Amino acid sequence: MIGIGAGDPDHLTLQGAKAIGAADAFLLVGKGEAKDDLTGLRRDLISAHGREPYRVVEARDPERDRTASAYTAAVEDWRSRRAEIYESFVRDELAEGETGALLVWGDPGVYDSTLAALDEIDAEFDYEVIPGISSISALTARHRVGLTRVGRPVHVTTGRRLATEGTTADDVLVMLDAACAFAEVGDGFHIYWGAYLGTPDEILIEGPVAEVADQIRATRAEARARKGWIMDTYLLRRSLS
Amino acid sequence: MIGIGAGDPDHLTLQGAKAIGAADAFLLVGKGEAKDDLTGLRRDLISAHGREPYRVVEARDPERDRTASAYTAAVEDWRSRRAEIYESFVRDELAEGETGALLVWGDPGVYDSTLAALDEIDAEFDYEVIPGISSISALTARHRVGLTRVGRPVHVTTGRRLATEGTTADDVLVMLDAACAFAEVGDGFHIYWGAYLGTPDEILIEGPVAEVADQIRATRAEARARKGWIMDTYLLRRSLS
Repeated sequence: MIGIGAGDPDHLTLQGAKAIGAADAFLLVGKGEAKDDLTGLRRDLISAHGREPYRVVEARDPERDRTASAYTAAVEDWRSRRAEIYESFVRDELAEGETGALLVWGDPGVYDSTLAALDEIDAEFDYEVIPGISSISALTARHRVGLTRVGRPVHVTTGRRLATEGTTADDVLVMLDAACAFAEVGDGFHIYWGAYLGTPDEILIEGPVAEVADQIRATRAEARARKGWIMDTYLLRRSLS
Repeated sequence: MIGIGAGDPDHLTLQGAKAIGAADAFLLVGKGEAKDDLTGLRRDLISAHGREPYRVVEARDPERDRTASAYTAAVEDWRSRRAEIYESFVRDELAEGETGALLVWGDPGVYDSTLAALDEIDAEFDYEVIPGISSISALTARHRVGLTRVGRPVHVTTGRRLATEGTTADDVLVMLDAACAFAEVGDGFHIYWGAYLGTPDEILIEGPVAEVADQIRATRAEARARKGWIMDTYLLRRSLS
């Protein structure tokens, strides 16, 4: 399980490149046409770092009910169907002693269900996880800010939680926010926002929330409509004075 | 400013390797003999990926008062003295149009003062931050666990804060804990602990806190005495039932 980074092909680590070179087969799970950019990067990395002979096995990502109010249940259902795809890859596509590779966006540990899905597989195999540049690291690097301030905590959370719980700390990193919950955090917060990080489409906006919230909302809606998908994340930081 | 990852030379990204190859000069700030391993990795990466001709400029890290009760003030004082070192590197060691490189352990955004120190520099220059594999990503990858659970937050904090505030969430990632504050978190937490992540000295221990706290404490003390330094981090996770 190889973390490939947040979007820039050069986010790949040397460890990740070597692991791609050592794989006999790759499983590519497509998201459908809307997210072909994401599958395209995986293909490019396999071409660049794979060593012949290798096989590429394709599967179609199960549909996920994104309108479900029971978010966790919907994710768990989707994960179980994903696990079936991984299981069939391990059992039907890999011979004894062969190595298969899954290329995972960002870092495998950050809001990704692949690890949990692997736990559900009913087949004998061993696996290794190769860390990748998370969208968190990519965001803070591009904005040239720290994720953390000296001796202070940072809370990593989701847009849904931010909307219901508000800011639970002076530094909050938010992912998976389709509803622009940042607009409601109130005065005193600065936002560092980024979309399509590390790609040619990257967009960065930063400033006091009160001043840039509308700009981010409009930019986000326009980009999402144009490309058919968006991946964005942001850091909220309250001034200490 | 290049994040070089958590200890494994292969944590370096392709982007980081290219940036090392493009630098005219490197600033190596030594920690004194105790942490020579850390400087050694930087030297190895420069040898492996640097392109001649390049220069290596060495400086001695200012002493930091680690016993100070005013932790933040001590860090800020140390950071200002660090900033002077960076300033003299930029002003005295780099000619117009040249590129200097700082190799930063882990990810530059995670509990690292270099970014803040660069802000204090009184010299004209531009810089870029290249994200690296944080010890957070390395820890969760080696334990093959997610940093986050579906739809749930994770709090990233320091050992000092954990000691005074307790666990503020069901998932808490702790760094900079010299006092083994995990031992006091109470029942119901599982710990995923790691030291010297990504290096040949790597140590991993996981289990219910109540069962493994003593083992971690003893292992940590022994390793620290033997090597003269330790860098460790851990994830605390409460079972959801």
